[in-house]
Amino acid sequence: MVSLTKRYRFSASHRLHNEGLSAQENSRVFGKCNSPYGHGHNYIVEVTVRGPVDPSTGMVMDLGLLDQAVESEVLDRFDHTYLNLDVPNFKGKVPTTENLCVEIYNLLRSRLDSAKGSAQLAKVRLEETSSNSFEYSGAAATREKR
Amino acid sequence: MVSLTKRYRFSASHRLHNEGLSAQENSRVFGKCNSPYGHGHNYIVEVTVRGPVDPSTGMVMDLGLLDQAVESEVLDRFDHTYLNLDVPNFKGKVPTTENLCVEIYNLLRSRLDSAKGSAQLAKVRLEETSSNSFEYSGAAATREKR
Amino acid sequence: MVSLTKRYRFSASHRLHNEGLSAQENSRVFGKCNSPYGHGHNYIVEVTVRGPVDPSTGMVMDLGLLDQAVESEVLDRFDHTYLNLDVPNFKGKVPTTENLCVEIYNLLRSRLDSAKGSAQLAKVRLEETSSNSFEYSGAAATREKR
Amino acid sequence: MVSLTKRYRFSASHRLHNEGLSAQENSRVFGKCNSPYGHGHNYIVEVTVRGPVDPSTGMVMDLGLLDQAVESEVLDRFDHTYLNLDVPNFKGKVPTTENLCVEIYNLLRSRLDSAKGSAQLAKVRLEETSSNSFEYSGAAATREKR
Amino acid sequence: MVSLTKRYRFSASHRLHNEGLSAQENSRVFGKCNSPYGHGHNYIVEVTVRGPVDPSTGMVMDLGLLDQAVESEVLDRFDHTYLNLDVPNFKGKVPTTENLCVEIYNLLRSRLDSAKGSAQLAKVRLEETSSNSFEYSGAAATREKR
Amino acid sequence: MVSLTKRYRFSASHRLHNEGLSAQENSRVFGKCNSPYGHGHNYIVEVTVRGPVDPSTGMVMDLGLLDQAVESEVLDRFDHTYLNLDVPNFKGKVPTTENLCVEIYNLLRSRLDSAKGSAQLAKVRLEETSSNSFEYSGAAATREKR
Repeated sequence: MVSLTKRYRFSASHRLHNEGLSAQENSRVFGKCNSPYGHGHNYIVEVTVRGPVDPSTGMVMDLGLLDQAVESEVLDRFDHTYLNLDVPNFKGKVPTTENLCVEIYNLLRSRLDSAKGSAQLAKVRLEETSSNSFEYSGAAATREKR
Repeated sequence: MVSLTKRYRFSASHRLHNEGLSAQENSRVFGKCNSPYGHGHNYIVEVTVRGPVDPSTGMVMDLGLLDQAVESEVLDRFDHTYLNLDVPNFKGKVPTTENLCVEIYNLLRSRLDSAKGSAQLAKVRLEETSSNSFEYSGAAATREKR
Repeated sequence: MVSLTKRYRFSASHRLHNEGLSAQENSRVFGKCNSPYGHGHNYIVEVTVRGPVDPSTGMVMDLGLLDQAVESEVLDRFDHTYLNLDVPNFKGKVPTTENLCVEIYNLLRSRLDSAKGSAQLAKVRLEETSSNSFEYSGAAATREKR
Repeated sequence: MVSLTKRYRFSASHRLHNEGLSAQENSRVFGKCNSPYGHGHNYIVEVTVRGPVDPSTGMVMDLGLLDQAVESEVLDRFDHTYLNLDVPNFKGKVPTTENLCVEIYNLLRSRLDSAKGSAQLAKVRLEETSSNSFEYSGAAATREKR
Repeated sequence: MVSLTKRYRFSASHRLHNEGLSAQENSRVFGKCNSPYGHGHNYIVEVTVRGPVDPSTGMVMDLGLLDQAVESEVLDRFDHTYLNLDVPNFKGKVPTTENLCVEIYNLLRSRLDSAKGSAQLAKVRLEETSSNSFEYSGAAATREKR
Repeated sequence: MVSLTKRYRFSASHRLHNEGLSAQENSRVFGKCNSPYGHGHNYIVEVTVRGPVDPSTGMVMDLGLLDQAVESEVLDRFDHTYLNLDVPNFKGKVPTTENLCVEIYNLLRSRLDSAKGSAQLAKVRLEETSSNSFEYSGAAATREKR
């Protein structure tokens, strides 16, 4: 089993704000990330798939298929958007990078599970700034099922 | 004359949009950067000052003074904002990274010229993404005056 | 369970030297890292915590609390020091980056375990140069206890 | 158990081509990576070993020994070569980065297993470009035997 | 005048070899870069253009036009090639990174001079490895003519 | 004229301290950089030479000669040292990165001027941390003389 990681980039903006909390609470919890019109990041997303090496091609997965999956599930959906208003996935959910990371994992998991290749999604790492990053490799139950 | 460059970071969002153009024109000129609620970046700003090395301290400039200048003129003003609505500097001016770079240069130039040190602002480099960056070293007239 | 990694930086110097060995042995084992007055590095420390995402905040941990922990346990203790003489933690212990990595893990583990959050320290990665890095995720016994 | 990762670099060229497939098939599977005279990369190889910290030296492994192993097993063999024609390891095997990563792991595993140190090879990560990387940590059977 | 720099990447291979020199001379001058089938690199090319900021768009140049120029003049020509045999530009000229840098500058200069924009090519920086890079900003005569 | 830049690395420690100032003055001017036993950095030094491209070799300068110059003048002298005590160049001079940058320029200038090649030292850039760097391209008089 070899794992393959490919790095993609997109730019988006977000405002950390929970409609269920008071203005004061939002400000206390989210600090300057709660500023009214949002702020933005250059996100780096690293997608890791894992599988056996196909003896005929010497590859774990066709990178073109991975590119297509990430383009349609992630880049087309999130690039150059304001996550709070442009993306239905964050209606009623705070668009923190933690939640965005889990969302990306779930979108790619569905897509890759329905492809016929033998490689499986292993994890998603999402970098918000050069200092902060987040990683998700699925719920325990899901991982065990494989 | 030695030059010193210090790197700072801030996160903001912007929408490329010129009020004087039609919706169609804005879309043609700015493409996906014209999306209605904006998108964002992690900006890296590199400030270069140049001057003689003080024989007593071995330094071109006290880095603490440079940090104060950048914090009050740049970071406090632009970090975690939506440039179009939060920052008066961009009322009636498209907040492209070119314009932001010139704006930062002018803000720091005024501030450092009024300080009594012998180091002068030499240039500002502003990185929008890991692929795109911009650089401004002042208007020719201003540079000659020094 | 999502993991969050935050990167911090500090600068310090050290001399690799074991008082219990002869000068010749020290020189053979540590090479130029044994030079008498030490040498230095810009260390990068990456702290990874892991936990469930709080549904109200969308966060694994308040980054401000993590910053406070790293500042008081790591940066205030090690930044701009000569590890051999300035830091009691290395009295009688060679301040290799391996030992520094374990030390930082243990300091942060105690601190975060006594905080009331649900996120736990998962690992510490310490980069000595752009070529060499070290990683520690606790003793096996400790990890099982969780 | 602390793990230590050291980064090395080499430059090589390769052509993705399977002699057992038709020209058309090769072109469909490998795209522009099948161009007749090959193309090249600056490979970054990160070698991770894991072991206990020696109380006398404070080290997991003598970095000089690791350097020697990587130089003779990896750099001398692959640096400044055309993998398809210069390196016997790829006679009859497509020199994808997946296969190169496994090859490097196996070469270093044999070498380090026969050394008398207590540190063991944990994984090899091979970066083909700044976007693509591959990782291998041995066959499951081999890992269990340890 | 603001300058804009955009970074592109391509992968190619080359062999440093001068047909006019003996095998011995080639080996002495070019060392391991003379190995018979070549070796390769991930080249990073940074293109800098300079011009006034258009008051209506806030931009120095339409990045889409720059992308088209670099794609057709540089990437389509050099990416995934063996420079010595695949690219007519290097018939009878050693494909060092110095020569490749000058070649890219000249190709882009012709292309951008014939476009109607007010931005001009200022320089080309070509990175061969993370340690070596080259920069060319045109012949003195050409620069003065502007 | 093409310029070539090569990057080298060394690790050293220093204490910013001027013997001619009182303890209080030293502490006010240098802050935590004045701590008694020093602290350290991984310095990155980028050496730029400029010259015509030799038509026979396609090169500005033999990189092996540049490596030798930097190794004997810079790395052998400064790597793994405590600049204040181990290096005579800093007897009576504060070892700031500004002064170290000028020192390295002067050492390389003498060395390369006495070599018979047509390439000349153009500048030295010295990075102290990922945030701070310094650049020196010689005294004006010296530059004009060329």
